[in-house]
Amino acid sequence: MELRGVGVGLGMAIGPVLRMPDPLPDPDDDQRTADAAEELGRVTEALAAVAAELRSRAAAAGGEAQEVLEATALMAEDPMLLDEVRTRIDAGSTGERAVFDAIATFRATLTAMGGYMAERAADLGDVSQRAQARLRGVPAPGVPESDTPFVLVAADLAPADTAMLDLEKVLALVTSEGGPTSHTAILARAKSIPAIVGVGGAAELVDSTMVLVDAAAGTVIVAPSDEQRAEAERAIAERASRAAAPLTPGALADGTSVPLLANLGNPDEAKHAVDLGAEGVGLFRTEFLFLGEAEAPSVERQREAYSRLLQAFEGKKVVVRVLDAGADKPLAFLSDAHEENPALGLRGIRVLRQRETVLRDQLTALQQAAEQAPGTELWVMAPMVSDVEETEYFVELAKSLGLRTVGVMAEVPSLAVLAEQVVAACDFVSIGTNDLTQYTLAADRLLGSVASFQDPWHPAVLRMIKLLGDAGNAAGTPVGVCGEAAADPRLAVVLVGLGVTTLSMTPAALADVRAELATVTLDEARGRAERALGARSAADARAAASAPA
Amino acid sequence: MELRGVGVGLGMAIGPVLRMPDPLPDPDDDQRTADAAEELGRVTEALAAVAAELRSRAAAAGGEAQEVLEATALMAEDPMLLDEVRTRIDAGSTGERAVFDAIATFRATLTAMGGYMAERAADLGDVSQRAQARLRGVPAPGVPESDTPFVLVAADLAPADTAMLDLEKVLALVTSEGGPTSHTAILARAKSIPAIVGVGGAAELVDSTMVLVDAAAGTVIVAPSDEQRAEAERAIAERASRAAAPLTPGALADGTSVPLLANLGNPDEAKHAVDLGAEGVGLFRTEFLFLGEAEAPSVERQREAYSRLLQAFEGKKVVVRVLDAGADKPLAFLSDAHEENPALGLRGIRVLRQRETVLRDQLTALQQAAEQAPGTELWVMAPMVSDVEETEYFVELAKSLGLRTVGVMAEVPSLAVLAEQVVAACDFVSIGTNDLTQYTLAADRLLGSVASFQDPWHPAVLRMIKLLGDAGNAAGTPVGVCGEAAADPRLAVVLVGLGVTTLSMTPAALADVRAELATVTLDEARGRAERALGARSAADARAAASAPA
Repeated sequence: MELRGVGVGLGMAIGPVLRMPDPLPDPDDDQRTADAAEELGRVTEALAAVAAELRSRAAAAGGEAQEVLEATALMAEDPMLLDEVRTRIDAGSTGERAVFDAIATFRATLTAMGGYMAERAADLGDVSQRAQARLRGVPAPGVPESDTPFVLVAADLAPADTAMLDLEKVLALVTSEGGPTSHTAILARAKSIPAIVGVGGAAELVDSTMVLVDAAAGTVIVAPSDEQRAEAERAIAERASRAAAPLTPGALADGTSVPLLANLGNPDEAKHAVDLGAEGVGLFRTEFLFLGEAEAPSVERQREAYSRLLQAFEGKKVVVRVLDAGADKPLAFLSDAHEENPALGLRGIRVLRQRETVLRDQLTALQQAAEQAPGTELWVMAPMVSDVEETEYFVELAKSLGLRTVGVMAEVPSLAVLAEQVVAACDFVSIGTNDLTQYTLAADRLLGSVASFQDPWHPAVLRMIKLLGDAGNAAGTPVGVCGEAAADPRLAVVLVGLGVTTLSMTPAALADVRAELATVTLDEARGRAERALGARSAADARAAASAPA
Repeated sequence: MELRGVGVGLGMAIGPVLRMPDPLPDPDDDQRTADAAEELGRVTEALAAVAAELRSRAAAAGGEAQEVLEATALMAEDPMLLDEVRTRIDAGSTGERAVFDAIATFRATLTAMGGYMAERAADLGDVSQRAQARLRGVPAPGVPESDTPFVLVAADLAPADTAMLDLEKVLALVTSEGGPTSHTAILARAKSIPAIVGVGGAAELVDSTMVLVDAAAGTVIVAPSDEQRAEAERAIAERASRAAAPLTPGALADGTSVPLLANLGNPDEAKHAVDLGAEGVGLFRTEFLFLGEAEAPSVERQREAYSRLLQAFEGKKVVVRVLDAGADKPLAFLSDAHEENPALGLRGIRVLRQRETVLRDQLTALQQAAEQAPGTELWVMAPMVSDVEETEYFVELAKSLGLRTVGVMAEVPSLAVLAEQVVAACDFVSIGTNDLTQYTLAADRLLGSVASFQDPWHPAVLRMIKLLGDAGNAAGTPVGVCGEAAADPRLAVVLVGLGVTTLSMTPAALADVRAELATVTLDEARGRAERALGARSAADARAAASAPA
């Protein structure tokens, strides 16, 4: 039997299914029999133990997962939460029920706030499950544990789930929900784990069933034949040798150079990227300095972080994106407006322009960091730019503050159709394929019910990219891609064929993309791009790009 | 002194300023001294009087305003509202305070629901103000009244405000907020009242100041000179003669036919449109049959409404759009999902495809209505179509149910870049410029803080339209425009120059558009379009289209 879904990456894996266990049942609504103080003591202890466990997992996880887990640990110890628990215990609840109800109240509030806060609601749910498990003396549900490697099957994975995964044991991810931009897909790319998302029938897979996961084909073969297994094992060995191949600069088979850069969200991730052969940074996200702060960080604090980053890439190029915030990622000091459609709101350069001091401070810190690291080439770019007027605003401001190479992100469809104006007004363009896909197809990238539209292989998205690539080539302005699309090796080839000159991705994807680029000439890449542009759907484009010319 | 903003339409007006008065102050939080039953009696009477007044205004208003006002009257008499008032009076509140607090609670709930419901919150605010005014024995604030004509100056106008306007007395509208797609702008077009929205300095205009409003120029001249007044009066007289001109079919100066059609939301509006010379219907919105219903209306009920519409346009063309609903306009029987970004969600054809019975019933009713009105040419189209796959789905379904001419709306940017695929797969395309602008520039059409992006004159939007126009002309597939853009006479000329073959608009705009089209040849229209396409901003495009060739 074969199940189909959307594959992420090129990997293959063979192993037994292990399902995400069901959550704990809701605790009974009985009156407590124990003393109130004793009951509160048990809960306090359980929440402290959960916080400690989350912290130790945070330290082990590193990167973005570390921040999410540390924030979750803080929530477990929130005195307001304990107050809510106390009130309920005083009113007669058991400890289990008091934790369950108190956290449910907090979650509802967070969910109503929407956006970033609503995502935290899922993390709080994890605290609730862990605390209840401790109080009941049962193992915490959530990510299953196993001594032997397995293929994880789930409805979809939340950030907290994935942060807890013992990735050493996970051979592949198979989810029944989610699309190519779901959290599961992003994790799979970041960690280079084969994944198939949106798999019809995945809910019926039972523990220990042997499956063969083929991300390139988008298939899950249930109980594969010996022959299928042997072939897959050969392919897996071949890919492993690719990962071990020398870290040469990105190039096509005919020698055409395609620099391969890393997407980073924190200077601490620099070493890992360099180790995997990143030829620089194509997207450095600066939100980590701003999120959760009551006011914008000082020029000094920002300069220190940027300097660390630039020093790690001595002799290379680093592209920094200025703060990308809006009603979907609210920052108290920037804007706290409620918006009906935050993705279509006052985001990115639009809000920075209204709060120009924040932007000036960030650009000043970047310029100072560049002076301290003269061996690194610093490029800066603005998110959510819509037209040439906004482009000129940002370029003029950044250059007046001493920055040399200034560009814009192409995420809004208007920028693609105005490409020839924009490339003449700035030094480079970097395409953010996730948002460009979302707006081109008017489909929220985080909404499951429109997941079928969130596919950067969609010919409409490819045509937008071609408009930008053509304009960039005509004007001699570099056009890179820094969205998830660049991490898909076969799509990376098509992007180069569309005129894209650099690719930036999660560092774990570098080896696969490097290997795939080396198999085609520029003419072949252009041929694949041409066929994909004429396709009628994302699936057709995938097939057309793979078909022999 | 001259103030500047975004002009709506081509009209001019001269008259004294009358400002929207400030709302009533919040009632004191004192304890009542009167008897509870007596106090409740006063409130019951006041709310009934408000409902009666709203109903009589509704009957006078007609059209969409009538529906809004009738719905507001129902809210004033809602037994749940009276229960809330009773509880508060029983607890010691005065009647004024009880009404104020009870309605505030209802408003908060509606606002939290977002979308269509949140818009109703503003209407409830009007009920609160009117009821309090009655209880205090003072005149209701809201729209000012005057025996002589005036220029209304406001921050922005809510639907309830505008429905209450005595339009006979309003010479022009000037608002400090709002953009070209704000409610004020839509009302101004629908009623053919000159308006300037987003006027900096409008807040400082005081009652009785004489102003000259020039919508074509986007200016408000404060205390105009005698010369300026005389010139404006000549222009006003000229426009009046245009409105009185014979109702000839739409055509350019060289005889090129450009059929001028009407946008309607109810069969009752048909006669008015025919009287103003509509050559058919370019957009018939069917939501009025579905909004507020517990389940989809029966085939019979729909057929009756569609038959009335088709009979009113005997010998003409009528384009009907199937139901356009989603999380922004929730319908209980269709979908009640909460979405983070409803504009980017499961809307239009996406949700109809999931609930195909609703779509089949509507198409069946349309086919039956068409059989009963063989002298009318019925075209049907689907909203929110993203690509050729969705186009083919809709076309095949509609044709299998006996409909002859089937097309799609172009609102999603992907459709423009895939235009040559789409025009080959359907019988016609109709461009919805409001949504196309919103998605192309990633700017919520209802959000004031991004109003500067919501302009169909933006060259990015014009380029999207050109992609569709060119593809339509190459394939011989008609491409019309039915968004607000078609009601702007100068933009209408540019649209024709971009390859658009029909224009559909609010009936009140027909005379101005007809007159403007008659002043240019097709070559001139193409020249203006060419210049606008090369512009850098919406303002530049406006100027470029008006400049001599």
